[in-house]
Amino acid sequence: MYGHMNASLMTPGHPQFMARGDGARIWDVDGNCYIDLMCGWGPVILGRRHPDVDRAARRALEDGDCLNGATPAMVELAELLVETIAHADWALFAKNGTDATTLCLTVARAATGRRKILVANGAYHGAAPWCTPRTAGVVAEDRAHLIYYEYNDVASVQSAAQQAEDDLAAIIVCPVRQDTSRPQELPHPDFARALRMLCDTTGAALVMDEVRCGFRLDLAGSWESLEVRPDLAAWSKALANGYPLAAVTGSDWLRSAATEVFATGSFWFSGFALAAALATIRLLGAEEALPRMHAAGDRLRAGLANQAASHGFAITQTGPVEMPLLAFADDPDHTVMRVWAELAACHGVYLHPTHNWFLSTAHTDAVIDEILDRTDRAFNDLSNRLQ
Amino acid sequence: MYGHMNASLMTPGHPQFMARGDGARIWDVDGNCYIDLMCGWGPVILGRRHPDVDRAARRALEDGDCLNGATPAMVELAELLVETIAHADWALFAKNGTDATTLCLTVARAATGRRKILVANGAYHGAAPWCTPRTAGVVAEDRAHLIYYEYNDVASVQSAAQQAEDDLAAIIVCPVRQDTSRPQELPHPDFARALRMLCDTTGAALVMDEVRCGFRLDLAGSWESLEVRPDLAAWSKALANGYPLAAVTGSDWLRSAATEVFATGSFWFSGFALAAALATIRLLGAEEALPRMHAAGDRLRAGLANQAASHGFAITQTGPVEMPLLAFADDPDHTVMRVWAELAACHGVYLHPTHNWFLSTAHTDAVIDEILDRTDRAFNDLSNRLQ
Repeated sequence: MYGHMNASLMTPGHPQFMARGDGARIWDVDGNCYIDLMCGWGPVILGRRHPDVDRAARRALEDGDCLNGATPAMVELAELLVETIAHADWALFAKNGTDATTLCLTVARAATGRRKILVANGAYHGAAPWCTPRTAGVVAEDRAHLIYYEYNDVASVQSAAQQAEDDLAAIIVCPVRQDTSRPQELPHPDFARALRMLCDTTGAALVMDEVRCGFRLDLAGSWESLEVRPDLAAWSKALANGYPLAAVTGSDWLRSAATEVFATGSFWFSGFALAAALATIRLLGAEEALPRMHAAGDRLRAGLANQAASHGFAITQTGPVEMPLLAFADDPDHTVMRVWAELAACHGVYLHPTHNWFLSTAHTDAVIDEILDRTDRAFNDLSNRLQ
Repeated sequence: MYGHMNASLMTPGHPQFMARGDGARIWDVDGNCYIDLMCGWGPVILGRRHPDVDRAARRALEDGDCLNGATPAMVELAELLVETIAHADWALFAKNGTDATTLCLTVARAATGRRKILVANGAYHGAAPWCTPRTAGVVAEDRAHLIYYEYNDVASVQSAAQQAEDDLAAIIVCPVRQDTSRPQELPHPDFARALRMLCDTTGAALVMDEVRCGFRLDLAGSWESLEVRPDLAAWSKALANGYPLAAVTGSDWLRSAATEVFATGSFWFSGFALAAALATIRLLGAEEALPRMHAAGDRLRAGLANQAASHGFAITQTGPVEMPLLAFADDPDHTVMRVWAELAACHGVYLHPTHNWFLSTAHTDAVIDEILDRTDRAFNDLSNRLQ
């Protein structure tokens, strides 16, 4: 099994092959049911099989697909994104998050006529040769114009920008530091503002990789509360509640460069995923979805903290509450965490030992309480096992 | 409008926005109906809204999607591809044709530890920086290890291989030369065999870009009749009759390299497109689909030849009959062809002036005759216009 859903990256308690899902629950092929805290690694934001989203996609499919041109859903979705996302003056659509991050860099290079891109050490921006975390088959030239900085370290970004001299095309950054196998880090406001200022003074584009965080923290953009807006942003995952779709949004000054770039794919004009995205974004806006996910995240975090304390475990919980991650203290190799995650799976909670989790609006108070009931048993088992 | 479906690349008679499709017909948003000869630029191979394919996809969607792991459909489809495609010992799945071609090169580099790739001048392998036909935003390093050869020119491939010295990772080739705005060229058997021999003697991988031709010419591989098999092949377009899917198939010696490469995307494990592909490939095998498309292509080509002759036009028709392309003699800028294609659109036949067309099994004899009735009127109008 290839990629991030290879079960060997999880624990022996996690299944590889799945049968079905509904709301916040998934079933493996052996019939075991799990309450899910991974949401397919992000795409599921309204719960699986959301009736309104599925109806919109099904209706589009009934009109046929691959029609030699876009349906009106593409224009409607572009307009909705431009209305919803603060920095956006235009949008285009693709299939993978990697398509979107790569296109952002290509558009920035086309617009500026420059080559260098600043990238945070350890950040995940996709699985293309320029960014994949495993370098088998990658050649040095794939990364020739990347200069690395440390997330939340203003001096390191400034130094990287100096190295780029007058050849700086873009700085790419994730809204939150969510590197695999380490605690999450929220962005320091000073860091966010410094990136914006560096781009303003050099004429480079600030590229926000919203693939993972997008639509969970703030519909208008994940750094809106910091009052920092990008020039280009890459979206995917939660955009269509699981239907395959990605988007690039851009500011006006990058519009003509985006037009020059040949961006296309056989299925990029496919209507049903666009229709699903329209339904998804409208529901996220209309249903107080984000405050509800935030409250669910608070409830989960508080519950886990209480349980860990009552069982005598020191833990840390990092990142946005909508995208939780728990780690045990003094567990640098995640050995204890893996055991606990496996015990949670045995008790019917599917969560990842080293990658942030994801909430959806299907995570109601009742579902969170059911999760907590099971994680308490996992802490209890862990406690017994370590005695 | 971005990409290959920008209507400005067609003629003023071609619509940009589409409403629906059914079988071999599509309707634009103004209610005009066209018999379609583009099949969404290839994905549609069984006609739009094929009931068996749509039922398979819908059933998979009813089980929910983005399930934190693959469904059994992934294993079944991998097994079916390995059974169907002569060279294939394994398969993995992606979303875009570009994902698949790029992965083939990455796997070849990982397997050989070498860097150089031979690419045919003018060939289209996707829209990533290493291969996109427009170079806005592309940096020189994206193509640092590509060496170009001429299609069907054995000496030019040998010379390119010599330039690569002991650093040759792969030769990538399309089953048919289908460069935009020029006549199609079938592969010379000597050329095909020379590529195979060069790879055998150097240890490089022969990569077949089946994205466009795949499943139309021979289910076992487009060069089976030439008795030349690749080591890696990229598939997409027709694989799932329009549902978004791509695949890489490989020979055993590349299996462990493929495992080392981090190949993944948020929607690559999505079950409904895999289910649609299972239904598509089974139908293509069971229904004599390929001979029927071939016969339809013969009927169309003969009809167009007769019409052109009877209206006094010298034309050429190139490429496989299942993927036709017509050009007028002495029309180097495609001026006459554009007028004729626009007239065809006005008479309700959607075909491209400079890119090969595609047939599907929905192109029955009756549909072909209906097309011919309309193209005859287009030839007649053209004749009147040029007088």
